[in-house]
Amino acid sequence: MEYGVASHGAVLAAAPLVARPTWLLLSPPPPASSIQIQNHLYSISSLPLKAGPVRACRASLASSYTQTSETVDLDWENLGFGIVQTDYMYIAKCGTDGNFSEGEMVPFGPIALSPSSGVLNYGQGLFEGLKAYRKTDGSILLFRPEENAQRMQTGAERMCMPAPSVEQFIDAVKQTVLANKRWVPPTGKGSLYIRPLLMGSGTVLGLAPAPEYTFIIFVSPVGNYFKEGLAPINLIVEDKFHRATPGGTGGVKTIGNYASVLMAQKIAKEKGYSDVLYLDAVHKKYLEEVSSCNIFVVKGNVISTPAIKGTILPGITRKSIIDVALSKGFQVEERLVSVDELLDADEVFCTGTAVVVSPVGSITYQGKR
Amino acid sequence: MEYGVASHGAVLAAAPLVARPTWLLLSPPPPASSIQIQNHLYSISSLPLKAGPVRACRASLASSYTQTSETVDLDWENLGFGIVQTDYMYIAKCGTDGNFSEGEMVPFGPIALSPSSGVLNYGQGLFEGLKAYRKTDGSILLFRPEENAQRMQTGAERMCMPAPSVEQFIDAVKQTVLANKRWVPPTGKGSLYIRPLLMGSGTVLGLAPAPEYTFIIFVSPVGNYFKEGLAPINLIVEDKFHRATPGGTGGVKTIGNYASVLMAQKIAKEKGYSDVLYLDAVHKKYLEEVSSCNIFVVKGNVISTPAIKGTILPGITRKSIIDVALSKGFQVEERLVSVDELLDADEVFCTGTAVVVSPVGSITYQGKR
Repeated sequence: MEYGVASHGAVLAAAPLVARPTWLLLSPPPPASSIQIQNHLYSISSLPLKAGPVRACRASLASSYTQTSETVDLDWENLGFGIVQTDYMYIAKCGTDGNFSEGEMVPFGPIALSPSSGVLNYGQGLFEGLKAYRKTDGSILLFRPEENAQRMQTGAERMCMPAPSVEQFIDAVKQTVLANKRWVPPTGKGSLYIRPLLMGSGTVLGLAPAPEYTFIIFVSPVGNYFKEGLAPINLIVEDKFHRATPGGTGGVKTIGNYASVLMAQKIAKEKGYSDVLYLDAVHKKYLEEVSSCNIFVVKGNVISTPAIKGTILPGITRKSIIDVALSKGFQVEERLVSVDELLDADEVFCTGTAVVVSPVGSITYQGKR
Repeated sequence: MEYGVASHGAVLAAAPLVARPTWLLLSPPPPASSIQIQNHLYSISSLPLKAGPVRACRASLASSYTQTSETVDLDWENLGFGIVQTDYMYIAKCGTDGNFSEGEMVPFGPIALSPSSGVLNYGQGLFEGLKAYRKTDGSILLFRPEENAQRMQTGAERMCMPAPSVEQFIDAVKQTVLANKRWVPPTGKGSLYIRPLLMGSGTVLGLAPAPEYTFIIFVSPVGNYFKEGLAPINLIVEDKFHRATPGGTGGVKTIGNYASVLMAQKIAKEKGYSDVLYLDAVHKKYLEEVSSCNIFVVKGNVISTPAIKGTILPGITRKSIIDVALSKGFQVEERLVSVDELLDADEVFCTGTAVVVSPVGSITYQGKR
């Protein structure tokens, strides 16, 4: 089995897939400024949206390399956001010296973890999420993987963990996508969701950083995150549960931030809402984020979004949308955004790797919709 | 190999240890009111303590069963709080029906976990901690395991997880201790630390509760938690980092609460402090807890400790100490305790399963000791 791998359209190399394939290094991705709007990735013609930032921003901004390959026989029309077992995963380890091993591709499957590992006992873990898209010409696009690599480094520092270098992270993402390229959905049918994990795999008993870390990347083909598909979602503003606190870890993608919102999400879903919008824990007044995405509020020509102050995740789609909105002539404000402004907005939308750009159809706050 | 197992001194049964031993059910522990002060477990004569609540409370309150056995050849004099590999661990699984399997003892070792398990991706995990002590007559004491069982149930509900029944939890603890009884330190040399874990082991991709859960118990012989041993510890009051927020998960023993304090703990230890005392995230004024224990402030005949309001852990040692202090004629107040009261206290001490009762020798707040 051979893969044709290439950079920006020119075939560079082909390497046989063995247990530990040696992929030729691909060119680094172009700088973020070389944004390409790939509107064809999403069919937006049927959406009940005004011309505006959501329409303008529902886009893929990409660094790319090209390959030709077949896809597997899946029901691409009905992809949700569940795990589909793919072929390979990447794994690298890091000991007390802080240096990660070269990493290898292994068949996707269970890993062996000590019951006394840092991640299982004290939640010392981080994750990332990014996507690969297939273009109509068969080439595969990655969305700003260098941003995920850098965010993992920032998060690792906060969680007292070593992190792989940006170069290793991007190389590992590329290797994993190429090894699983037959799982990248056809153009317009979805994407290959890429899940890097960094975890304290070494053993601890008392509370302390683990003495060994494992970096894993696995992938799964996905469709839409919300069951609403690309239609507007319905949010409930949560004023009892909070997901983060100043001086906490809300600004990094540590695993513990997510299990803590399951209860609020469960209650909201039971009541028919798509997801929960959290308020700040101190004043219970300012918007923070939705369980798995950032929020934007549009009023006239001004797009406002909560500033990055350590309690919300610095979303990569969020950053890209700000860039795009500015380039389209909108005024963008990163600041405290109150719940009153939310209720008075012309338009509200969410951004995230999983949800992409989701328009908000309704907001419910203190019983009022 | 045979174990003599008994309840409250009377030998009940002996069962051969096979891959899946069937221990005879031991009597349930006595109610919490039947507290026995086991002062002999700790030598307190050399401590620089006033007669007072710390001295009165450094005790083991126990439900007990008896057995006779040899111990392994360890350096019992120098046990710290690190992991020591023991013989067996308990493991049980629970699927979507919410019922846990019967559970079995297996050799201690790595478990197989999917990279897309809920615990590794979204931190859906809880832990408990309790101890078994060896009495001079060779019998082994457990410290209120029913409290840990109930706390795991409360925590599981908050984290959208099923939990084993109190009966299964206690039975599993007993099985695990008996299977590893040769690792219970001799009287006065330490204890066998018991670590129950409950984790979302089923696979997820989008944020959701896992479809399968694993309940594990492993053990390790331990000595003192702090390097100070039984000598007073030195705390720094943290006013930048916070561990919990109202409406968060600070009141349950979820794994994510612990990795989030590693950074503050690391900074404190680098400066020579034993641990960190956290303040509330909203007012930055009221005491919460230390990274791994509760805090008590003594002024005259009054012992005050932060009330359980969802941001601090409802410690089992904390509760026992309150019971003992009341029985000794102290007035106990569970309420908001300000940092000013802390600095004005006659005596301060910490309680926890790992730390037992640790006197605080110094407090540093905003640079002042």
